[in-house]
Amino acid sequence: MKTAITPTRSENFSEWYQNLIAAADLAENAPVRGCMTIKPYGWAIWELMRDTLDKRIKKCGVQNAQFPLLIPINFFNREAEHVAGFAKEAAVVTHYRLKMIDGTLQPDPDAKLTEPYVIRPTSETIIGEAMSRWVQSYRDLPMKLNQWVNVMRWEMRPRLFLRTSEFYWQEGHNVFATHEEANADARKMHRVYGDYMREMLAIPSIMGEKTPEERFAGADHTYTLEHIMQDGRALQAGTSHDLGQHFAKSFGIQYLGPDGALKHAWTTSWGVTTRMMGSVFMTHSDDDGLVLPPAIAPYQVVIIPITREDTADALNAFAQKLGEQLENIDVRVLVDTSDMRAPDKMWKWIKRGVPLRAEIGAREMDENNITVTRRDLGKSSRQTMTIDAFVADVKNMLAQIQHDMYDAVVRRNETMIHNVADLSALESALANGKIGFFRIKYDLTTNEKFDALMEKYKISRRCLDDNDPTYVYVAKSY
Amino acid sequence: MKTAITPTRSENFSEWYQNLIAAADLAENAPVRGCMTIKPYGWAIWELMRDTLDKRIKKCGVQNAQFPLLIPINFFNREAEHVAGFAKEAAVVTHYRLKMIDGTLQPDPDAKLTEPYVIRPTSETIIGEAMSRWVQSYRDLPMKLNQWVNVMRWEMRPRLFLRTSEFYWQEGHNVFATHEEANADARKMHRVYGDYMREMLAIPSIMGEKTPEERFAGADHTYTLEHIMQDGRALQAGTSHDLGQHFAKSFGIQYLGPDGALKHAWTTSWGVTTRMMGSVFMTHSDDDGLVLPPAIAPYQVVIIPITREDTADALNAFAQKLGEQLENIDVRVLVDTSDMRAPDKMWKWIKRGVPLRAEIGAREMDENNITVTRRDLGKSSRQTMTIDAFVADVKNMLAQIQHDMYDAVVRRNETMIHNVADLSALESALANGKIGFFRIKYDLTTNEKFDALMEKYKISRRCLDDNDPTYVYVAKSY
Repeated sequence: MKTAITPTRSENFSEWYQNLIAAADLAENAPVRGCMTIKPYGWAIWELMRDTLDKRIKKCGVQNAQFPLLIPINFFNREAEHVAGFAKEAAVVTHYRLKMIDGTLQPDPDAKLTEPYVIRPTSETIIGEAMSRWVQSYRDLPMKLNQWVNVMRWEMRPRLFLRTSEFYWQEGHNVFATHEEANADARKMHRVYGDYMREMLAIPSIMGEKTPEERFAGADHTYTLEHIMQDGRALQAGTSHDLGQHFAKSFGIQYLGPDGALKHAWTTSWGVTTRMMGSVFMTHSDDDGLVLPPAIAPYQVVIIPITREDTADALNAFAQKLGEQLENIDVRVLVDTSDMRAPDKMWKWIKRGVPLRAEIGAREMDENNITVTRRDLGKSSRQTMTIDAFVADVKNMLAQIQHDMYDAVVRRNETMIHNVADLSALESALANGKIGFFRIKYDLTTNEKFDALMEKYKISRRCLDDNDPTYVYVAKSY
Repeated sequence: MKTAITPTRSENFSEWYQNLIAAADLAENAPVRGCMTIKPYGWAIWELMRDTLDKRIKKCGVQNAQFPLLIPINFFNREAEHVAGFAKEAAVVTHYRLKMIDGTLQPDPDAKLTEPYVIRPTSETIIGEAMSRWVQSYRDLPMKLNQWVNVMRWEMRPRLFLRTSEFYWQEGHNVFATHEEANADARKMHRVYGDYMREMLAIPSIMGEKTPEERFAGADHTYTLEHIMQDGRALQAGTSHDLGQHFAKSFGIQYLGPDGALKHAWTTSWGVTTRMMGSVFMTHSDDDGLVLPPAIAPYQVVIIPITREDTADALNAFAQKLGEQLENIDVRVLVDTSDMRAPDKMWKWIKRGVPLRAEIGAREMDENNITVTRRDLGKSSRQTMTIDAFVADVKNMLAQIQHDMYDAVVRRNETMIHNVADLSALESALANGKIGFFRIKYDLTTNEKFDALMEKYKISRRCLDDNDPTYVYVAKSY
């Protein structure tokens, strides 16, 4: 069977993904090493993901602010684990002027910075410095801040959305008076992400704590959300960190307690990135292209008038009017009156993953009917209904798609999580090409034999099982 | 009379501005040369400004996208005027790794980029390169793109919001088939900004074309919006550029016409920045602090319960309930139930410019009354009214404030625009300390005598008079 995307997922998942991104016009590699340009359709999805998550974050009492892009090296260097974790991928600003020298535009040697700056890979340090001034007394706590920004981590093997040198994210940074509150907050934001991903992205998360080996550089506890891709590999979709007093001590974030004693505070940080888009695309899409959950689809419905030359004007006008009706009930709709051929339009919007496609021809217009197809189910869901019924039911249909897409992933994931009794069982599963997450006793993964398996099969510890943290999930990952 | 901000505007406008920003908790200087940290209250204002402008931009058929932060030097260098305009303030990335050398964290000499990158000061070049691939045929035109991003122009004399090395903006980049369309678009976006500033920011703009001396580096025409500050100085609040074919030719943005001929396209770019916030703050504020137009005020109403110990709980609950009532009719409201003293609360929100302050004591609660004061008018507007009347009327009151604030600036500006017949008249006005905009024949400002005046009085040409472009406005500027 001919598919819109070649190769198919089963033929070559990695190439399929690249071609999916191109076919849906989401993004492209930028002419800057490791960076991407996010095209309008891709960015529209991100805006919906961002704005809906932003509301949930603000409901937690978090306020947005904006901290500088550049971080002085000495800030970066104050927390030892942190700098060790990020120094190897830091983009460094060393000059503040260009000059034409011998016909070539170059950094001006007379404009060298005495102290270079790093483009933020994350902002614990620069926000920690600010908090050391902003937090004075217990009355200032908790202080909860967030920013939506670009960050940069130099990337040698970039892949669109999954791993790019520059990416976009929100980073939340909260301060508390006690460790108990901080840890509870790190866990709470972890749940906020889990709820968001389930309800908006239609993706179930494996949620648990990272093992010490996989923690964020400078954290006491890292809570992660791991998604299972269709090829069985893990995608880390978000993390929330209990930073203990690492940054509070490095930056002197102290508060005067009600008892008059000066104490170090406790901080958390938590973030999700444009990588989450990669998870949405890889989790839901099929061999015909993107499949978007209605909650984050820039167009939830596309109306395609099947025009003949003599009926085009009347039909386009009719479709426009229907579009307005849907807009009035807050459905995001596109009426495609472009001069492409109808089948080309159809495939364009299939590849872009619009949840509902509504086609209308001259005869249907006369009969007040419309033919509707669900993107997630394809042809089998094709049905002709009256326009009144469609308008009355469209919101339910979208909610049903959102619900069914989530369910489908849950069912698929069930087939991708395997219990393994010991390292030999793990090895034989991997050797047999079994894909997915393997659940194994954590202590079995802290020896040389496991290290050899990690090396050989490119697997890693994803997270501890929240229900029984003596078990850990291991998988190949993106 | 004691004022909340000292010095007052008339005593020292520049210091007043710094203290205003601090008192309203809007932003602070960052520990990064020339950069600012925008604090939550400041960023909440920007979010409202951004989101409301974004809607207007999208209504023009513009789509948001996201282009890389870094620009390869050779891109930057392709348009001669452009590089000349920006090379002197470019932040340059030269390394992609840090290394500990002799106990000091430094750029790793083994990780030097063969071609350095510039942090975008503006994105005509990198977007031009993308457009050269995205635009193929006349069917792709017009193409209208925008991005909301941070940019960097190294700044030696920074001032919060007005002039910072890193700032935040939107930059729109449109491509057209003909010069006529491109020029009409540059003028249209200029008007979109003018309408937005009038309706949302309550600020009238002097709108006109920049003289050749003041054009954007690489533009054929630059249309500007100039605001008159309370000290008579000009603030350039936004610009829209007709770029002719400068970038189309440098980057090869070409399209195949319906006639099969390959032609260079015509481009525009247009932007407004966080500098606009500086204009809002300097235009409307007074010696007691910020005065915000309701349309962009994070809180349009603050409710202050005047509690005594025995009535605090009941009164706070009553105030909360009123707050919810206002929220339900889409008024942005804060109920200040913090444990500060009532006068301290009152001054806090005066300094932060909340448009309407509603105070309620135990007796008023019993009588179902509330006492309301407009921030823009102060004490003279103080009135006690029934709570029902307040709820019924609050939206009208906010609209009236928005309207009156605009009118007040229009009236003040009328006193600040002066016609001068010749350079002697200009010089004597300046020598006498007259402040504001001076309207003079443009050709009078293209000689050495005018250059000497520019130097001596730090004035510059702001823009041509749209009604009669043989005249130019000159003023001191921020």
